[in-house]
Amino acid sequence: MTLLADLLANVFERRYRSGRNGDLAKRPFTDLTMELMGTSGEVSGMNVARAILDRYSVSDETEKLAFFHHLAEDMTISPSSVRQALDAYEQGQTKASYRAFMTASEPPRQELIRRLNQVPGATKALVAMRSDLLRLGKGVAALEALDLDFRHLFASWFNRGFLVLMPINWESPAHVLEKIIAYEAVHAIDSWDDLRGRLQPSDRRCFAFFHPAMPDEPLIFVEVALTNGIPGSVQALLSAKREVLAAEDGDTAVFYSISNCQAGLASISFGNSLIKQVAADLSAELPNLKTFVTLSPIPGFRRWMEAEGHDALMADGDRLRALAAHYLTEARRPDGHPLDPVARFHLGNGAEVHRVHAGADLSEKGMQQSAGVMVNYLYDLARVSQNHERFAASHEIAASSEIRSLKSSVEKANA
Amino acid sequence: MTLLADLLANVFERRYRSGRNGDLAKRPFTDLTMELMGTSGEVSGMNVARAILDRYSVSDETEKLAFFHHLAEDMTISPSSVRQALDAYEQGQTKASYRAFMTASEPPRQELIRRLNQVPGATKALVAMRSDLLRLGKGVAALEALDLDFRHLFASWFNRGFLVLMPINWESPAHVLEKIIAYEAVHAIDSWDDLRGRLQPSDRRCFAFFHPAMPDEPLIFVEVALTNGIPGSVQALLSAKREVLAAEDGDTAVFYSISNCQAGLASISFGNSLIKQVAADLSAELPNLKTFVTLSPIPGFRRWMEAEGHDALMADGDRLRALAAHYLTEARRPDGHPLDPVARFHLGNGAEVHRVHAGADLSEKGMQQSAGVMVNYLYDLARVSQNHERFAASHEIAASSEIRSLKSSVEKANA
Amino acid sequence: MTLLADLLANVFERRYRSGRNGDLAKRPFTDLTMELMGTSGEVSGMNVARAILDRYSVSDETEKLAFFHHLAEDMTISPSSVRQALDAYEQGQTKASYRAFMTASEPPRQELIRRLNQVPGATKALVAMRSDLLRLGKGVAALEALDLDFRHLFASWFNRGFLVLMPINWESPAHVLEKIIAYEAVHAIDSWDDLRGRLQPSDRRCFAFFHPAMPDEPLIFVEVALTNGIPGSVQALLSAKREVLAAEDGDTAVFYSISNCQAGLASISFGNSLIKQVAADLSAELPNLKTFVTLSPIPGFRRWMEAEGHDALMADGDRLRALAAHYLTEARRPDGHPLDPVARFHLGNGAEVHRVHAGADLSEKGMQQSAGVMVNYLYDLARVSQNHERFAASHEIAASSEIRSLKSSVEKANA
Amino acid sequence: MTLLADLLANVFERRYRSGRNGDLAKRPFTDLTMELMGTSGEVSGMNVARAILDRYSVSDETEKLAFFHHLAEDMTISPSSVRQALDAYEQGQTKASYRAFMTASEPPRQELIRRLNQVPGATKALVAMRSDLLRLGKGVAALEALDLDFRHLFASWFNRGFLVLMPINWESPAHVLEKIIAYEAVHAIDSWDDLRGRLQPSDRRCFAFFHPAMPDEPLIFVEVALTNGIPGSVQALLSAKREVLAAEDGDTAVFYSISNCQAGLASISFGNSLIKQVAADLSAELPNLKTFVTLSPIPGFRRWMEAEGHDALMADGDRLRALAAHYLTEARRPDGHPLDPVARFHLGNGAEVHRVHAGADLSEKGMQQSAGVMVNYLYDLARVSQNHERFAASHEIAASSEIRSLKSSVEKANA
Repeated sequence: MTLLADLLANVFERRYRSGRNGDLAKRPFTDLTMELMGTSGEVSGMNVARAILDRYSVSDETEKLAFFHHLAEDMTISPSSVRQALDAYEQGQTKASYRAFMTASEPPRQELIRRLNQVPGATKALVAMRSDLLRLGKGVAALEALDLDFRHLFASWFNRGFLVLMPINWESPAHVLEKIIAYEAVHAIDSWDDLRGRLQPSDRRCFAFFHPAMPDEPLIFVEVALTNGIPGSVQALLSAKREVLAAEDGDTAVFYSISNCQAGLASISFGNSLIKQVAADLSAELPNLKTFVTLSPIPGFRRWMEAEGHDALMADGDRLRALAAHYLTEARRPDGHPLDPVARFHLGNGAEVHRVHAGADLSEKGMQQSAGVMVNYLYDLARVSQNHERFAASHEIAASSEIRSLKSSVEKANA
Repeated sequence: MTLLADLLANVFERRYRSGRNGDLAKRPFTDLTMELMGTSGEVSGMNVARAILDRYSVSDETEKLAFFHHLAEDMTISPSSVRQALDAYEQGQTKASYRAFMTASEPPRQELIRRLNQVPGATKALVAMRSDLLRLGKGVAALEALDLDFRHLFASWFNRGFLVLMPINWESPAHVLEKIIAYEAVHAIDSWDDLRGRLQPSDRRCFAFFHPAMPDEPLIFVEVALTNGIPGSVQALLSAKREVLAAEDGDTAVFYSISNCQAGLASISFGNSLIKQVAADLSAELPNLKTFVTLSPIPGFRRWMEAEGHDALMADGDRLRALAAHYLTEARRPDGHPLDPVARFHLGNGAEVHRVHAGADLSEKGMQQSAGVMVNYLYDLARVSQNHERFAASHEIAASSEIRSLKSSVEKANA
Repeated sequence: MTLLADLLANVFERRYRSGRNGDLAKRPFTDLTMELMGTSGEVSGMNVARAILDRYSVSDETEKLAFFHHLAEDMTISPSSVRQALDAYEQGQTKASYRAFMTASEPPRQELIRRLNQVPGATKALVAMRSDLLRLGKGVAALEALDLDFRHLFASWFNRGFLVLMPINWESPAHVLEKIIAYEAVHAIDSWDDLRGRLQPSDRRCFAFFHPAMPDEPLIFVEVALTNGIPGSVQALLSAKREVLAAEDGDTAVFYSISNCQAGLASISFGNSLIKQVAADLSAELPNLKTFVTLSPIPGFRRWMEAEGHDALMADGDRLRALAAHYLTEARRPDGHPLDPVARFHLGNGAEVHRVHAGADLSEKGMQQSAGVMVNYLYDLARVSQNHERFAASHEIAASSEIRSLKSSVEKANA
Repeated sequence: MTLLADLLANVFERRYRSGRNGDLAKRPFTDLTMELMGTSGEVSGMNVARAILDRYSVSDETEKLAFFHHLAEDMTISPSSVRQALDAYEQGQTKASYRAFMTASEPPRQELIRRLNQVPGATKALVAMRSDLLRLGKGVAALEALDLDFRHLFASWFNRGFLVLMPINWESPAHVLEKIIAYEAVHAIDSWDDLRGRLQPSDRRCFAFFHPAMPDEPLIFVEVALTNGIPGSVQALLSAKREVLAAEDGDTAVFYSISNCQAGLASISFGNSLIKQVAADLSAELPNLKTFVTLSPIPGFRRWMEAEGHDALMADGDRLRALAAHYLTEARRPDGHPLDPVARFHLGNGAEVHRVHAGADLSEKGMQQSAGVMVNYLYDLARVSQNHERFAASHEIAASSEIRSLKSSVEKANA
């Protein structure tokens, strides 16, 4: 059992602790990065890397910005070196010339970030660092380029193959659960009692992706309700007064909330994998499950209605549903993608617009965003690939016949 | 406890299992890679990636070679595209132009390898794939260049910060222990009894690095003996008849064997980190430990002696020790590095040549390699960085005064 | 890792789930107990045992009482059989005659309870059953005798050697933490935030005993504060505004709250073992700890004062302290034991009355019970045995010189 | 995760370590037991208990015997006290009189054993102690009576509800696996390779019961082969050259070896529960399994044949099968139980004699015990209870029609 006990011990070790490198951490960033990249960096790297992270952790915004500029400007590619290496490679495609090209075309800051990551627990600190960078570097070309390097490394480190899917339930550690409370982005969790209501009943499930180097930090999580039939009201779905279903009696899994947790992992997409993995795992566990749908908000609907001159307050339920069907399938950005951000996510994953419901979210936020209308996106695993392909190739949106006939009623009316 | 139970469950899932994609896996590699890199790859990627790995796993050498050539030639950089992107970047250093340069300068095969790695358990399959590539691609420039891409990705994935140090002992799982038997490279382990003799006694320790995505596979391991004083004979050290020491009574930790386990991780160096981490952990656990040394073979010594015209069989112990001291500190390759490969490793880590012993390894292999002489490299944690720096900068070799006076006796004799 | 994974899986299995023995569970208890004790009970026992537990779990108070009377009256010893077996044993002390005596002198209900315990998860159900029995059987001689059988078995099953001490902290599972909130008996925990304040800071610890057959249920827990010096105010000790100490900087561990969790384990004492084990574990982890004390309520102090004619509201701090010192060391029950129940517990464990503090608990409960006075009991591990022995032999109470001089001031005044 | 990490840590602590009670452990047993039972025993118990176990662990056979005699003679019941307590109880059945009777009728050595068990890891030492007692006390009435007390306590401690069923496989810890090798009692395991052959193939399983207080020590284990159809040859079944079946393709689970591991747990039966639990778990995991049988030796067959005047060497296969059917169902001990010990075990569990095979065990042991004949006992879960009941009530043996017609052929021939 030692193998595991030590794995556990190590998991604890992974929490980054600032070292006792007092003096080292007082030296300027420019010195420290030079040392970490220098000859002895390979051997004494851990200490220097820790000193940089320690110094960063106590830096104010100005110092952080200076550090980012240092990486962006002093540790970037040299176009002339790249060109020289490329010329040499073209003249003779050898191992050596290719290696030289690789070295020249990758900015040294990528290696710096990899060396910082040697320190146990550093991954979490680096994710936090990128979250600062995204905030501080917005609109600054050099810093946005620097962010591409972070993102490139993170995409490799947070590869799906390295992630671990774990159920979150009432037996999960409190320090993880408090993060679920903090990160829930769709339907806020008010209290520990509210959380228990999302985790403990037999018709509720929650799953998160974790990375082994950040075992305390969920990356993304999805909350699932098991139901009979496709639900049309989030308040009914979440009501503490509903009749609780035995898990094995449900025929439908409803993904009613998906939340990204790490600002520093922006644009590294986990949602698609998460939904598919959860659907596969739930299918294996509960063979009666036949349908996998969301019950999703339509955040841009009311704004669009107003822009189009429809009066949300005057419309009845049928009219709202028809308009929503139209909005979801026809309203586009200039680049051809759906106007609605949630629609972009699910349709990009290969889901179809399946049903729309009026009076489905009567919360203040729900009324304000979409006049209470919600939508079910259907994940039909047999058609997800094909849907995705058509969507990717030509922005073609998959929709059920119900949705198609609803939207055509609008179009006829408009005609 | 679910969190951990599921982490464990997931660890099992990580063992790659070929899918049931019968038809998919029969399609040619060129189709499959195109599909994986194409529009729907993002969504259906897992299946296609699995199909490629499945197909690869049943390929013969010719097919593997064809696959590697496909990656090397069809999925490499396009110098003209790189040049174009570089020109654009020089004209305007924007996020977009930098991103375009990044895309152009990274060969598509890197992204292919990352996408293959989405499949649970794929990391191990990819490490095995590189081991094939190293064998099959030797001397073929395009394949050696391809290997640099594998190596670049692996260096990032197998970053020290992602590795887990675990003690290996008699309570470790049998399927891990049988790998320790198989991979031991220095002093072969004959049998499970022999293995137990290296793990169970209170004066023996063993540690390995693991990667969470390959939990069954040690990456590198070190065997340690706890002793009183610095030992001068490996047979005495390993003798089953020795008096076994209580762990807390030892003052010296002897790293008597370090073995790399994964051919597919060649040139991604873990040894330096391993030794330092183990020294740090042992220090914390056993405060009486004062000295960290190796008892190392000198594989090139006898060949060098013969080349130099010294007769190994005629030399007495003192003469052998003096010659060994001279060999270790003075015999160099044309690039200035020590001739002896084990010396290169430890001196590169910042160790010093501390003592040499005649009659220290009386095994057939020991006599043949080094006429029975062995060496202790000392890891003095306070001087390791400085030693490394001098060695890296000017090939200066740290040696104890004993070694220095031994070798000067040879030099005087030669003078 | 399977060994552990399965241990975990099994731990989950231990949660008792009612079976699907519909028909069996409808039969009367008298039938079921006869069946469980009968010939086929050994083989089909699990089903019958589960049926009894199922039936019990849906019984109302009247049915439970009937079940207890059945055990108490139909499954008790037969004095004539005992006498007969005893006579035979006296005539010939053989294995057979001793076995016959053992059988006759143990009431069959003990074997029944052991057979009920075969069902996974039954231990928890049996502990709950005894808690019913204690409530329903109060004052009924036959049921109090039945309780002695439960208690006898539980004392054997919950032997110290079978208990597992575990730290409770902010990484413990939520379903265990909510029990800590529910069971805290001394200083109520208001909320999850309050709980976090008791678990997460570096100067706070909590430990509980668990039994492997009831892994979700703490049996008893103690909350510890690490301080510099012996504290004299519980509000100051628990204040969220205090300066938080690094664990390794404290010289004193204060056991400020000990709570039993299981009514069904009444009179099976864990507190003594818990305190000693926690003191030993903390000593090993934090070598700077020198002093182990409680900061304890004095629940009977004010009632005693009033009975003795002292006016708690009129007394100043010095007077209160002197009276408390006197009360704790001199006020006795007719059987010679201290009047104060908390004093009985700690003095029985071998602690000494060390200090008393006025204004130490200004909560409503604290003022009402003891006019705000609290006491430190000192656990001096070197003297605990001797203190205990004197206390057990002659009710001699160990007290510090400070306490002794305080109380003598009262006695002089009284004289 | 701490909860689990500490559970693990505690599991390690459970290994009994002799204390550093040098002086204490030198005192005579009679002093130490008196101290442990005395007033301060409750508080200082752990140290005294450890001293007794320490002293015992270095005692020779004479000292152990003296210790057992001390328990047997000085710590037994006092018939006059029992009689007195019984009289008082009959006169007034109160809680107090019942408690006094319980105290008088239980020998003090039971409480002593419970107090010894307070020490972490003591359970294993006590099991070993009983194994000594069984050996040294054979035929000595007072020591056999003492053993009944050990057995009584162990039956309570090793209650089915406290046991944990765990799969044993190639990922189990080596220190557990070496015990499987050591304890296998039916078909000896030659080597680690042989062991791997019993654990790793997809058509092999092994399960053991463990007790949480002795996590290193299997109590009993069963080896299972998954097959298609009921096998009739153990050599074929175990052949390394057989075609290995995918687990999910088998329709039959064959319990081909059951081994008790702990001599100190003699007559505390786990086999019945083990077989049923394993059958239930395998059924749930592998729904294609329809049949649960053994392939069992018939250890007394040849001896019986010889006693009956049948010449084993002259008989052909049909004759041997018929005789075996007759032997298994008709040959009885004077008490009416089957003559064959293995038959007693399985028939007592409710199995039926299902098939007999000649030439089924061609090993030396197999030929010698049973002229190569083996038997399948069938566990038909639907009939196990009823079979057991009939067997228990009237020694009626369940047998298949095949067995019944085979044995009737013998009877006809004899008639």
